[in-house]
Amino acid sequence: MGSTNISIIGAGSAVFSMRLVSDLCKTPGLSGSRVTLMDKDENRLKAVHVLARKLASELGHPIEFVTTKDIEKAVEGADFVINAALVGGHTFLSEIREIGERFGYYRGIDSQEFNMVSDYYTLTNWNQLEFMMKLAKLLETRSPNAWLLLAANPVLEGTTLLKRHTNANVVGFCHGFLALEEICRKLDLEFSKVDWQVAGVNHGIWLNHFSLGGTDAYKILKEKFSENADWRPSNPFDDSFSPAARYMLDFYGLMPIGDTIRNSSWAFHYDIETKKRWYGEPWGGVDSEEGWRWYTDLLGFVVKMFRELAMILEKEPEKSLRGLLKNVASELPEDLAREASTFFNPNIMSGEQHIPFINAIANDEKTRLVVNVLNNGTIRGLPDDIAIEAPAIVSSAGIKMEEIYPDLPERIIKWYLLPRILRMEWALEAFLKKDTSLITEVLFRDPRTKSREQAERAVAEVFRAARKYY
Amino acid sequence: MGSTNISIIGAGSAVFSMRLVSDLCKTPGLSGSRVTLMDKDENRLKAVHVLARKLASELGHPIEFVTTKDIEKAVEGADFVINAALVGGHTFLSEIREIGERFGYYRGIDSQEFNMVSDYYTLTNWNQLEFMMKLAKLLETRSPNAWLLLAANPVLEGTTLLKRHTNANVVGFCHGFLALEEICRKLDLEFSKVDWQVAGVNHGIWLNHFSLGGTDAYKILKEKFSENADWRPSNPFDDSFSPAARYMLDFYGLMPIGDTIRNSSWAFHYDIETKKRWYGEPWGGVDSEEGWRWYTDLLGFVVKMFRELAMILEKEPEKSLRGLLKNVASELPEDLAREASTFFNPNIMSGEQHIPFINAIANDEKTRLVVNVLNNGTIRGLPDDIAIEAPAIVSSAGIKMEEIYPDLPERIIKWYLLPRILRMEWALEAFLKKDTSLITEVLFRDPRTKSREQAERAVAEVFRAARKYY
Repeated sequence: MGSTNISIIGAGSAVFSMRLVSDLCKTPGLSGSRVTLMDKDENRLKAVHVLARKLASELGHPIEFVTTKDIEKAVEGADFVINAALVGGHTFLSEIREIGERFGYYRGIDSQEFNMVSDYYTLTNWNQLEFMMKLAKLLETRSPNAWLLLAANPVLEGTTLLKRHTNANVVGFCHGFLALEEICRKLDLEFSKVDWQVAGVNHGIWLNHFSLGGTDAYKILKEKFSENADWRPSNPFDDSFSPAARYMLDFYGLMPIGDTIRNSSWAFHYDIETKKRWYGEPWGGVDSEEGWRWYTDLLGFVVKMFRELAMILEKEPEKSLRGLLKNVASELPEDLAREASTFFNPNIMSGEQHIPFINAIANDEKTRLVVNVLNNGTIRGLPDDIAIEAPAIVSSAGIKMEEIYPDLPERIIKWYLLPRILRMEWALEAFLKKDTSLITEVLFRDPRTKSREQAERAVAEVFRAARKYY
Repeated sequence: MGSTNISIIGAGSAVFSMRLVSDLCKTPGLSGSRVTLMDKDENRLKAVHVLARKLASELGHPIEFVTTKDIEKAVEGADFVINAALVGGHTFLSEIREIGERFGYYRGIDSQEFNMVSDYYTLTNWNQLEFMMKLAKLLETRSPNAWLLLAANPVLEGTTLLKRHTNANVVGFCHGFLALEEICRKLDLEFSKVDWQVAGVNHGIWLNHFSLGGTDAYKILKEKFSENADWRPSNPFDDSFSPAARYMLDFYGLMPIGDTIRNSSWAFHYDIETKKRWYGEPWGGVDSEEGWRWYTDLLGFVVKMFRELAMILEKEPEKSLRGLLKNVASELPEDLAREASTFFNPNIMSGEQHIPFINAIANDEKTRLVVNVLNNGTIRGLPDDIAIEAPAIVSSAGIKMEEIYPDLPERIIKWYLLPRILRMEWALEAFLKKDTSLITEVLFRDPRTKSREQAERAVAEVFRAARKYY
């Protein structure tokens, strides 16, 4: 394949865009690609452009960058469109959450059983789903052969929606399964040598097999839990060995991976005290008021830092990004400092799967990736027309899902995945019909609802506010 | 077919047994049948025997009655076994309900979304399910060709359980669909001339079509609702035109029939005030403390009355049951007095479908009946291996399910039936594994649960009490 045209929608997310650009520079087969950065926020777009150009140039790779605020222009001629846009941004998430809380819905009405992730709105962010639809429909007509890579949440709802209602080539991605890499590190197992499979739906994936050289690695995993009496999280995301994970492993029979642990039932999320008990002190996991503040503070810090770096580089283009990042490394939290250093390490990819996917398709480089596609019989016991998440071999022939073996346990199908999928169906129907009474009906089935009026008033108020963002 | 052997298990339920015996006497093809009455309560068994013998003799039909307390004897040689037994009886129901209420579970832990019916226990009455299994397994070996007619609740769980785990010829029955007859009466439509179909699961059935001579009877039904502003129930069961029914018709798109109206979401059942608002004053429907007292008082009155009638007839066998029933008619509530008079009316069947079913099978009398059998593709959108309720043509060739046309709306499948079916799966797994931690898990998803401890303590206490009945 010659020059590959890649568009990043919502490219203003600096860390995400830097990861992609860095990965691209480390992928020889994609040398000479053209990258269109699209964001509706001009300042963020400009900053990312400066940084991306600099990163590519310091990595010695000729990437042609184009920036645009126009989505149609971004889509035109693209081979691959990566959608990372969160319509309304964190401002929307906060406003809607706060209204919910005023009406007695702790963590907002979008926090629901098996979907507690604080930026994974399925009930109220119709804008986000609408935008995904618009993008997919644009692709249908403008670039019918292009792939649409969904990076933005909600991946389960979004992928299902677009696969059902458009003809775009959609595939959903989430790096959540990489928590398994971190688990392996803690178990002193070499991730690359482990034989593993995850399966489920986005943010609801389970470690279906896990072995190393014929040895059952689950045994090692369970031993780790039992020696873990005084476990404490190192950060709000550090929950793989939390009491919540342990309970889920015991109850469901398989290890929940990544965001799956956050997505438990209300018994783990009633209030901050409950969250602390299950997700550890002092935050109670990332989906508490304290954990989420930790995360958004960090995000704010990073955004500000990249904006400042971009400003420096604009004024003094001769400075090196690598050098600047080294200078600020001491101010960065450990994980971020490590990540920043990997941008320039030719042997370490970011872990995001978008560029490897593009390389696999464009250059027939058979690659094992964890993707979100319609089930169509892959996971037994789930409907065909819902997006599942599982490993696949990707090549220029397309996506070939791995056989799920053994079948996921009935316990996970009937107590976790099917209830979660019903919530998706409810959310999608409400969105498609723009019917807020369906959202009220969802709240009638919510343990935080004490009266009909509470649900009705919360929904009225939430959608009055949401409308501002339309 | 020659003499048909029919066994009634739990025959001590006088009204139910009288209905069956009366129906039998009015079915010429079943003349000369032998009826085995089985109950473990000797006094109730004796009383029913006296009454049944008398009823048959006054109706001029030669029925041979056998009584036994032994289930194996009851099953041996039977062609049809009707199970009406409620293991533990109302004493069990009340005790378990009261414990639940002490821990904050209004109407007991078995009251659950889409299953509020106060004697339809799916979570705690493992005895009931165990007894059904025992009976079906007995049939497998002792009378493998016999039919097992499930009359006792929970019909959805019971039929599914027995079809999945035994080879008995099981079919479930519920007279709940007859509410449609009452609806027609209120709409001045002749029920026998109406073209109708109900479909769903037991206590969750929906009026799938409804017309009269080519006219859409739904229109008439909806008009009735709109002129019903000052609706009040005549008794706690009178809910077909309640605000709850109206809401369900609007939201789900089809009319809920019979017990389906009781089985709504928590929004209709939070507390007695909510129930009154949706099911009418003064009872708030039959599944409130007040409605249920009305029902159990009535039940107690009827049981006492039949016991007294039996005592009189034992002492003075020359007296006529018909005459005695006439004498007490003035003391009976209107519905019951009407029913008692029909026992002796050769043109009116009770409405219970058991005898018509037996006649259809035994005498190849093609009959349209509403039955509970495994879905196997009958209702699109539901799994194959769950018991659905829908009309069938029954004959000596067996049960031929009617085509469900049109398909049930997605709204009913995804917002009502699938969530209800998941609850069945949870209950059956808990029963099969005798795992109370699964019941606790169900309570974690219950809006009445405010803390983990509440659920755990309620379940421990409930099963401590339930064990007494094992």
